Amino acid sequence: MYNMDKLYEAVTERGHVCVGLDTAVDYIPQAERRKAASGAEAVWAFNQTLIDAVIDIAACFKVQIACYEELGLAGLEAYAKTLKHIRRRGGMVIADIKRGDIADTALRYARAHFDGDFEADFVTLSPYMGMDSIEPWLAFAESRGKGAFVLMRTSNRGMRDFQYQELRTENPPEQIRRLYDAVGDKLEELAVRCRGKYGYGAFGAVIGADPKSDAGREEITAIREKRRSLFFLIPGYGAQGGAAEDAALLLREGNGGVVNASRSILKAWTAGMNALARPEAEADNAFAAEAARRAVLDMRGAIRMAAEKRHS
Amino acid sequence: MYNMDKLYEAVTERGHVCVGLDTAVDYIPQAERRKAASGAEAVWAFNQTLIDAVIDIAACFKVQIACYEELGLAGLEAYAKTLKHIRRRGGMVIADIKRGDIADTALRYARAHFDGDFEADFVTLSPYMGMDSIEPWLAFAESRGKGAFVLMRTSNRGMRDFQYQELRTENPPEQIRRLYDAVGDKLEELAVRCRGKYGYGAFGAVIGADPKSDAGREEITAIREKRRSLFFLIPGYGAQGGAAEDAALLLREGNGGVVNASRSILKAWTAGMNALARPEAEADNAFAAEAARRAVLDMRGAIRMAAEKRHS
Repeated sequence: MYNMDKLYEAVTERGHVCVGLDTAVDYIPQAERRKAASGAEAVWAFNQTLIDAVIDIAACFKVQIACYEELGLAGLEAYAKTLKHIRRRGGMVIADIKRGDIADTALRYARAHFDGDFEADFVTLSPYMGMDSIEPWLAFAESRGKGAFVLMRTSNRGMRDFQYQELRTENPPEQIRRLYDAVGDKLEELAVRCRGKYGYGAFGAVIGADPKSDAGREEITAIREKRRSLFFLIPGYGAQGGAAEDAALLLREGNGGVVNASRSILKAWTAGMNALARPEAEADNAFAAEAARRAVLDMRGAIRMAAEKRHS
Repeated sequence: MYNMDKLYEAVTERGHVCVGLDTAVDYIPQAERRKAASGAEAVWAFNQTLIDAVIDIAACFKVQIACYEELGLAGLEAYAKTLKHIRRRGGMVIADIKRGDIADTALRYARAHFDGDFEADFVTLSPYMGMDSIEPWLAFAESRGKGAFVLMRTSNRGMRDFQYQELRTENPPEQIRRLYDAVGDKLEELAVRCRGKYGYGAFGAVIGADPKSDAGREEITAIREKRRSLFFLIPGYGAQGGAAEDAALLLREGNGGVVNASRSILKAWTAGMNALARPEAEADNAFAAEAARRAVLDMRGAIRMAAEKRHS
């Protein structure tokens, strides 16, 4: 069974929230930072408590490797421990590594991130170099159920620079075809070769939910309509500006996507302390984990409600 | 002074060869592998000997991080040691990491690879997410002289999938504008903001040299002609099929680019043993390093000759 099938089932059972463990040292309560031997140790202790607090209500976790690389070798040890802990607890983890390199190198990367110290259930990939940078990863879908999310239409400002480039086509001028459409076509071809039991391929796409306008809403609705074989990893929620209603536009029959939030979950504790009129310095990891749990529950409820409203 | 200026000067003094330390464990002489406590230890010992043997005739080194990630945490220790050794010996190193992520994350990556355990002089970047994924790195060009090479037109088969997409334009139909042209335009805008004393920006581009046809040769010649502010990192030489004459098409007045080769240098020792009619099992790192030195000298001579022929 593909991990993408397991993710589909996790969404049904536990909701749509992908908890983004982009744990910056300064997100961690001061008292805990002081207690820890190093920044990397503080990150690992924080992650462990937080994972345990949300494991039953998160569809999956996404770990942004940059936050760990920033702390050097010790940071990557914390990264490896975090991944192991999620998987030991029965959770699934997306390694947010956005790799994209020639076929030989892609195979080495796949071994690095689908096996050994850094084993994850899914990775994120970048398509610029072409499909021969994506396909070597696919062998691990067949042999081990592994999955991937390939960047297609992201939610940052700069996505307009290249993803939005209009391609030359025989279509009438009002039918615009963008670079991300070309990526989507290739990803659908790929998905057909590794389709799981719920109709989604083992490899899906990253589609940002931050439309900011009606035209943007129409655009992402059309993407969901057109890309029926692609399960979506949806960034841009919360701190990045997207809302539950926008994320719901990228779901299909209440499934077909997980919605990532990082800062709004990891830093929920600061608002919690403010609400209690207590100084932030008094917070600890246990308090942060409780606040994170409430944030995940709120987010999960908001997305479920938006999805039901849309499909009713 | 920008590292890109130093690289220009290194090309004048030491030639065009960028030694690619894509050290796979099975490139290393068997006897040395057996002696080492682990694959990662074997890689580090091999790299050290090889770096020392070519430091005075290499423009720079390129280290493909995938080869080290594949070996897990121990591999990344060997990676860190390799970078430190090159820099301690006065060499320059390109971290071949092809990162590309949203601005916040890009800044974390920049701190990871321009400082601390993994400090390099240059990195490679992938442009799919747009210029806000590239610009955060630029602060390190101003403050520390650091440089980058952004993927523009690579040399793998799959580059036709997206880099070659024709863009909609007002130009007459015979003037094709491709995605990589859009990337090149943005990179030239960036280079103007960080131009060094030899006219090249602190951030350059990756342009593959494997034209395989006259049309391909015309194409890369036109790229060199048009992109006067961009210093090129040129992969595709040797094992990937490119030749000195093709690489020379991407140089300008004998400079403006470094040409990467990996396998043909790292594995030169196997041909050396064959030539001596000795079994491969008898080779050691010292022999491999001598063979690598001869391979770099040959490659350097061939590129210099081709560049002189072209510009005479």
